[in-house]
Formats: sequence, C-alpha cells, structure tokens
Amino acid sequence: MEAWFFENQTGNFGIKIRIEKILHHEYSNFQEITVYDTFEFGRMLVLDQAIMFTDKNEFIYHEMLGLVPLFSHKNPERILIIGGGDGGVIRECLKNPFVEHIDLVEIDKRVVDVSKEFFPEIACGLKDRRVEVIADDGIEFLKRVESSGRYDAILIDSTDPVGPAEGLFKRDFYESAERALKDDGIFAAQTESPFFNKNLIRDINKIIKDIYEKPSIYYAMIPVYPSGLWSFTIGSKKYQPQNINESYKGFDFTSLSLKYYSPEIHASSFILPNFVKEICK
Amino acid sequence: MEAWFFENQTGNFGIKIRIEKILHHEYSNFQEITVYDTFEFGRMLVLDQAIMFTDKNEFIYHEMLGLVPLFSHKNPERILIIGGGDGGVIRECLKNPFVEHIDLVEIDKRVVDVSKEFFPEIACGLKDRRVEVIADDGIEFLKRVESSGRYDAILIDSTDPVGPAEGLFKRDFYESAERALKDDGIFAAQTESPFFNKNLIRDINKIIKDIYEKPSIYYAMIPVYPSGLWSFTIGSKKYQPQNINESYKGFDFTSLSLKYYSPEIHASSFILPNFVKEICK
Repeated sequence: MEAWFFENQTGNFGIKIRIEKILHHEYSNFQEITVYDTFEFGRMLVLDQAIMFTDKNEFIYHEMLGLVPLFSHKNPERILIIGGGDGGVIRECLKNPFVEHIDLVEIDKRVVDVSKEFFPEIACGLKDRRVEVIADDGIEFLKRVESSGRYDAILIDSTDPVGPAEGLFKRDFYESAERALKDDGIFAAQTESPFFNKNLIRDINKIIKDIYEKPSIYYAMIPVYPSGLWSFTIGSKKYQPQNINESYKGFDFTSLSLKYYSPEIHASSFILPNFVKEICK
Repeated sequence: MEAWFFENQTGNFGIKIRIEKILHHEYSNFQEITVYDTFEFGRMLVLDQAIMFTDKNEFIYHEMLGLVPLFSHKNPERILIIGGGDGGVIRECLKNPFVEHIDLVEIDKRVVDVSKEFFPEIACGLKDRRVEVIADDGIEFLKRVESSGRYDAILIDSTDPVGPAEGLFKRDFYESAERALKDDGIFAAQTESPFFNKNLIRDINKIIKDIYEKPSIYYAMIPVYPSGLWSFTIGSKKYQPQNINESYKGFDFTSLSLKYYSPEIHASSFILPNFVKEICK
C-alpha cells in the first residue's frame, strides 16, 4: 500500500510525504485537524492542509521561537503565547530559568486536546503548574489585557496568515501586543518563508520597525516548511535580541540537551543572506 | 493544463514542481538530462531525476561552493572544479580577484552544451579566457595530475553519490585531491543534507579530518534541495576556512552584487545547529 499526503506550499510547488496511518481527523469549530503517522518524519500535525510540525523536526521551530526571545531578555518571568496549542513553545520556554508564569491563548481547544493525546512529548509542558491554558481568540484576549502591560515576552505561534490566524499578522494586533508588554518587554512571531513570502515579511518588518526600539529578523532552517528557510520577526523595547542577555552568564546551556539552539546559533540566526536583507531594507 | 515534475528525495518524501514546458530531454552517455520551464522557479536542470538547480535559486549553491573556499585562501590562482559542467561555480570563482586559471573537468560534455544553450546566465563563465573545459572522468584526471601538486583550490560540484558521481565520495578520491593541491591548498565538496544523509556526512568528515590540518563543515539554505539544509565539507592545509583571508582586507564585496554570500555569512555558515555538530563528533 502506498498512501501520500500532499501539501501545496504555493500554487506551483508542493511536497509529498508517505503516510503509514491516519491517526485522527476532525473538523473543529475553527479548522480541519489531522494527525498522520509518516514513514519519514514520525507523527505529523496538519491544520487546514498545512503541516504544523512532525515529531522528527519539531524541535527546530519550537526551540527557535521559544528560546531566542527569552534568552535575549534579562528575566522573562511572565510570558504570553498566542496560538501554539500543541505546547511545543511552552516546553522550550520552561527551560528558561526565570519563567514563572505562561499564559497560552489558543483559539481552538481541540488542538490542545489532540496534541495531548497524540504528541505527549511536545504537549508535556501544558500540564506544568506554571502554565495557564486559555481557550480564546488571541486578538480579543490582548485587547482585554493590554492596559495592564504585564508581560515580559509575547510570542506568536500562529498558523499561516489565512483562516483563523489572519488577524495575527496585522498592525492593530502588533500594537496591541506592544501595549501588553512591560517597559523592557520583547515580542516575537513566526513570519513565514523569505523565499515565498517576501511581501508579507516586508510589511511586518515595517510595522515592527515603527513600534520597537530594537526590531530585527532571525531565521531557522526547517525541513517540511516551504523552502526550508523560515523567518521570525522580533521586536524588543530594550534588550538587543542579537545577544544573549548578560544575566545568563555562566548558565549551562548544554544541560538543556538542545538539538538546534545554542548561544552561537542565537547570534548567527540574525545574520541573513543578502537576498533576505534586501527584503527588509 | 497541469503538468508536474516529481522528485523523490527519499523513499518516503518528495517534492512536486509545476512545469510549463519540457525544453529539452536526452539520454547522454552518462545520464538522463532534462530541462524544464517551471512556473515557480524559472528554468530547471534535472539529471537522472534529481534537480541540479533552478534559475531562481541557483545563486545560493553556486556562491557558497565557489566563494567560501576561495575567500579563505590567500591567493587562489589555479583552481580545479570537478563536475559543475553548468558553469555556475566557475562564474562565482571568477569573482575572486586572484584567479588566473580554472580547469573544469566534467565527465559529461552534454551537460556543458545543454547549459550553454538553456542557461546562458549560469554558463557565461565557461567562455572566459581563463577557463579550460576538459571532458574527462574527474577521478582519472586527478590520478594523472596529482603528482604535480599544482592547484590552490579543488572544488567538487557533483551530483548525488549514485551513478556517475559515486566515486567522488570515496577516500581514494579525497586523497588524490589532497596530493594535487599546493602546500597551502584548500578543498571543498558538496556533501548532501544533514537531515537525510547523516551517515554519508559522518563518513566524509572522518576522512577529511584524517587528511587535512583544518577540516570543517559549512552549510547553506537551499530551497528545492532535500530538507532545504545543505552541507559542504571543506579541508584546508593552512588557512582557517572559517575566516576570510586577510589578503582581502579592503576588498569591496558589495561590488560583486552577491545575493547570498557576504563576509558575515562566510563566518556564520560554519556555525552549525547542535544536531549537525553531533553528526560530526
């Protein structure tokens, strides 16, 4: 038997992954949720036909979205994650020694439930006593809490900018996030492929430059994501995101058993190829 | 009309690219050669069903295989390229101010002819007066010239380690290349994806460590190559490949209009994610 999952990453380019089993399939109130078992990558979560992650490479995205902003910040105690109901970014954030509380705002509670059932090694952090899972629309949630300016870091772990995540790529939302941050807060979001989504990255970069003292872009190399080259946009009110904060001097990164991130990767992930720098000029 | 090219990058993973036209197809004495026009990536050269490059992203591979070793070397005057009949690496090597002569040894003369016809912007360097194109087996050629120790740099621009390129990934060949280099010579080869070809990279790395004073691995992010993350293995007899040589102090890299490479990318391309470092331990 040969069964394949196809993802059309653009209208004219796609990938195919051979599947062993369909472990789960449903239409939630917000999207189509599918879990496959694959021969090449282990289990794979797919939302609205787009791959979120596979067991074999989820560490790259989750480490890089979780650790780069947090280790740029002197003492990130209170974190907000929008999206990310699978728990992968939580798992990484909890590796930072200062983290005291994480609010995870996931619009689709079914993503949380399905992840707990099929991806226990990714979802493990969801059960941590420091974590509160809130089933809500991230945009609405931020509007309610923004006057408090209570967060040290806000991380946007969204799907692609179509469907439920569309509003997470707009100026209003970015401004709302900035208001919800403390005076030395830091913001980071996944912002798609520099190869296929130049205009999106250019637009977001302009907004983040307007809002933050220290805006920047960093990247990771993520197999199964369109083009393999993935961007994150980061805005910081005070700290240089290119550097690990001095408060981690002497911190033993090797004790975390990280598979992608290291202090050297932190710094080098901000060094962009010329064609990506060109996008953000 | 919808027509697609499929590449099976592993037995259980592949990509698909929508094609507009088949511009050329033949069986040469060595392999199947196809040129497609694609909607997403422009023209694309395919050898034995494996994508060599597309117009839209060829600059990444060619800049990184050509420029990293050459700008690590004090004065690379005499270069040998094995494979690379398309001319892309030649075009990049000619951007180094010291280059006086390039021997290109391509086993399949038809790759040279087809590239000249369908990829004039890549093949342009093939006509340069400093370039000699030799239709020969790279392994046999090296055996004949190795006693001369005449080259400053040897670059291996091969297809995958099956079919005509298989011998280009073996210890005998690497030793032969070392002998053909001057006392301060430098060697670099494309060595596949760290995500899908761990064992190959590990084996090559051991050999290069045995042979060279300063062995290393560097990477580039190349869409349409398996996993998007690509490795190069470099061995240097004298110069630190991680650094641009001091002889280029004051050299104006911006005048070269490079789209990927820069002095900062040169250095950062040697900073590997933990899971890649683990392969080479």
